[in-house]
Amino acid sequence: MSKETEFLSYLKEISLLKQATSLLEWDNNTGMPAASAGYRAEVSGYLSGLAFDKANGQQMGNFMAYFANHPDELSPFGQAVYEKAKEEYELNHSIPAAEFQAYAELTSKAQSIWAEARAAGDFKLFEDTLEQLVDFNKTFIPLWRKQEKTPYDVLLDQYEPGMTTEKLDSVFSELKDGLLRLRQLLAEKGKAPRTDFLTRRVPKELQRQFVTQAVSQLGYDFNRGRLDETVHPFMMNVNRNDARITTRWMENQVQMAVFGVIHEAGHGIYEQNIDALYDYTPLAGGVSMGIHESQSLFYEKMIGGHPHFWDTQYPIFRQITGDTFQDIDCKTFYNGLHKTESSLIRIEADSLTYPLHIIIRYEIEKMLFNGDVSVAELPQIWNDKYEEYLGIRPENDGEGILQDIHWAGGSFGYFPSYALGYMYAAQLYAAMNKELSVDDLLLAGDYLPIRAWLTRHIHQFGGSRKPDQLIREATGEALNPKYLLDHLEKTYRAVYDVR
Amino acid sequence: MSKETEFLSYLKEISLLKQATSLLEWDNNTGMPAASAGYRAEVSGYLSGLAFDKANGQQMGNFMAYFANHPDELSPFGQAVYEKAKEEYELNHSIPAAEFQAYAELTSKAQSIWAEARAAGDFKLFEDTLEQLVDFNKTFIPLWRKQEKTPYDVLLDQYEPGMTTEKLDSVFSELKDGLLRLRQLLAEKGKAPRTDFLTRRVPKELQRQFVTQAVSQLGYDFNRGRLDETVHPFMMNVNRNDARITTRWMENQVQMAVFGVIHEAGHGIYEQNIDALYDYTPLAGGVSMGIHESQSLFYEKMIGGHPHFWDTQYPIFRQITGDTFQDIDCKTFYNGLHKTESSLIRIEADSLTYPLHIIIRYEIEKMLFNGDVSVAELPQIWNDKYEEYLGIRPENDGEGILQDIHWAGGSFGYFPSYALGYMYAAQLYAAMNKELSVDDLLLAGDYLPIRAWLTRHIHQFGGSRKPDQLIREATGEALNPKYLLDHLEKTYRAVYDVR
Repeated sequence: MSKETEFLSYLKEISLLKQATSLLEWDNNTGMPAASAGYRAEVSGYLSGLAFDKANGQQMGNFMAYFANHPDELSPFGQAVYEKAKEEYELNHSIPAAEFQAYAELTSKAQSIWAEARAAGDFKLFEDTLEQLVDFNKTFIPLWRKQEKTPYDVLLDQYEPGMTTEKLDSVFSELKDGLLRLRQLLAEKGKAPRTDFLTRRVPKELQRQFVTQAVSQLGYDFNRGRLDETVHPFMMNVNRNDARITTRWMENQVQMAVFGVIHEAGHGIYEQNIDALYDYTPLAGGVSMGIHESQSLFYEKMIGGHPHFWDTQYPIFRQITGDTFQDIDCKTFYNGLHKTESSLIRIEADSLTYPLHIIIRYEIEKMLFNGDVSVAELPQIWNDKYEEYLGIRPENDGEGILQDIHWAGGSFGYFPSYALGYMYAAQLYAAMNKELSVDDLLLAGDYLPIRAWLTRHIHQFGGSRKPDQLIREATGEALNPKYLLDHLEKTYRAVYDVR
Repeated sequence: MSKETEFLSYLKEISLLKQATSLLEWDNNTGMPAASAGYRAEVSGYLSGLAFDKANGQQMGNFMAYFANHPDELSPFGQAVYEKAKEEYELNHSIPAAEFQAYAELTSKAQSIWAEARAAGDFKLFEDTLEQLVDFNKTFIPLWRKQEKTPYDVLLDQYEPGMTTEKLDSVFSELKDGLLRLRQLLAEKGKAPRTDFLTRRVPKELQRQFVTQAVSQLGYDFNRGRLDETVHPFMMNVNRNDARITTRWMENQVQMAVFGVIHEAGHGIYEQNIDALYDYTPLAGGVSMGIHESQSLFYEKMIGGHPHFWDTQYPIFRQITGDTFQDIDCKTFYNGLHKTESSLIRIEADSLTYPLHIIIRYEIEKMLFNGDVSVAELPQIWNDKYEEYLGIRPENDGEGILQDIHWAGGSFGYFPSYALGYMYAAQLYAAMNKELSVDDLLLAGDYLPIRAWLTRHIHQFGGSRKPDQLIREATGEALNPKYLLDHLEKTYRAVYDVR
């Protein structure tokens, strides 16, 4: 056996362990009996520990040293895999396995505690746990640190390699200014669309019927995925043939699950179309959170938010929902989906205010890791920022700081990915339009070329390209927030009838 | 750390791996996307291999040797755990890990192949796979063999420690004679009950509502379990707080899921009531397949088949099902459930003919491992035996030899457990009646004392007692088929109105 074959076989063991822990986590969040949480935390912690040991222990160290000295023994494919494994190794190998396992057990338990605190709307119930999670990360940061300038940069870089607070401060500043200007314009000159019909009841099963056909048409393969119900929707890729999505059904807010499922399906489509070449290596899976979000938000916002998408889908929606929307024409329906207004819950936010929710989280995380803010102060800060940026204030922590699962899962530095993904999505959409007439394709309900373009430029590469490289190669330039601002301005001027 | 603590900590790792593989298997059989089967087989094979290596490798060998020489370093609890681990070690340690892993991968794939063959009703599609499964077992038997007399005895002993073909030949012979006599009596003098109403349609959701409340009352804890849908129903204990059950819903055969769920709930109740003392050791979990079946069949046949159970449950059933059974009184309903007649499908068989289905499987497995019958000949033999014992012949393999999942999962020697469990159940029921008035409890819908009796005599011990010991201590004597024959005679004489 060549050393490369031996190395790939070793990496496959890590991949197999991760596939198992992914399924355990999916189950933990979908149907696991609540009383099993303690046992499950032990199982997940143990398997994560095994994977961690393998990815960061002596044996991996030996492979790293060997190939550093014998780069000629790696094929180009082996080289790419090696580079990725090395990145992870260098990031983590100094964290002791016992600490990592304790952290994995904590994050597993934390999700149940968070769910209870959220249901009670009481941050106090989650405060200690969050503090432990933050402390673990503060302990890890100096061990992880490479050349990043601030502690929070270390976290950012894990979700979006190459991203820094310096870049984000600049991009988010341009984005925020543009959004506030547009909101001002709409407030002064716009005519808000009618939305009353959006609260009409659509039974869960009919919603499921509609979105299932919609995302199937868009390219999500149910033979290699499934759709379940959870409080907080997510996509979990066990492997490229098992990319599961979840949603939350709200019978009187049909657009929530419709766009939620399209969003998660966008994540799933990404995973389902990564080249099988990368199976069982660290290159199997999306490259970064930002690029992942670019795919989900592409489908949710660029496609699902396009008037021509609804020209073909609305008749189907109307047929499935019987008489419910008989008196509502497509334009009225479409416009209603695009009312913009300040709101408290990120995942329910409209397409225009959404990035402001992210910018708030970004600023809070930055303070938490780069400043000297304590966990106990967070609800107050959170509420103040909502009041400042959006003019509204949460009445309890359930609709405030407890609304997102991310921190309970130990994800700090993840939130900016949503806004990055949104900007990438608009930029990809503009580039796609140079090659395809997306308007015509949507009018014809011909979604395959859209999926194929994304597969060609993004999906297929898995983790083998850097985010910045992918975006440059697909669009011809680096991240540029102007595409998103242009897209939003065009969309909302039309809906709000502003010339 | 004492050597015993070290040993228990080592065994815990094995338990954690097994909890993970249990969940993977549950998922494989419930909602896993079909296209993921290849990946899943690799994951399951890998984790099973890790568990197998730990349970049978050098490190376990060292523990075995150490405690053989230092028995005084074990507490009584440690001693019991050691004895159980030693049994498993001696059974398996001579099987090479690579072969075990290949076998685990085969059984994972085999279940999909079996499912396809079954759907097509064509044994040919499964023949090669079954042959490989049998060959693996024939290779393993000489490695497993302890003092057992025949190859098939080696398999039997794994599911029911201490059981032999010699004992089974004798017990099954007495049972078969008794059943045939009783069938003869009913055929000559009995009046078959009305059953036409049993095909009335009861929607899945109403069936679920009824059985959920019924098994909750009986003692199955849904906070520590869940109910899913599969082709072949099963109970999977991930741990004592996560004992999942499944069923197959047939809208025009309501009794199938009603009794199916009660049956699986009986398995689940057993697991849920094992003492937490045994957590993470090889003693956590039911002691044998026969004892496990005694618990499921106790609930299905002794309780679910009792007229007084229906005196309290039928009004609830009638309320949930609306007008559907308005014209059917409780006695008519109860009697209808007890029509006996030859049929092809084991899991749909009635309480009287059921053991004959098992005896057929027992005889075929015995021929396959102790005789010189080939896999290719099995469908013919199967069909001939059904014709001989039950007077009917399958028209295709789907309703014949392909109906059960067991062989696809590599389980040979398992089937006799069903009949053993049935005999144990009747014997336990007779013993319970010496202490409790079960008739009165059922009339009052007071099920807790029944569950508590079973927990006291069976459940709590987990794997810390041998089957024969449990039965002797709970009932005062060894396995005796007379209790089942008496129970069936009493039940069917009443239903068929034979004085």
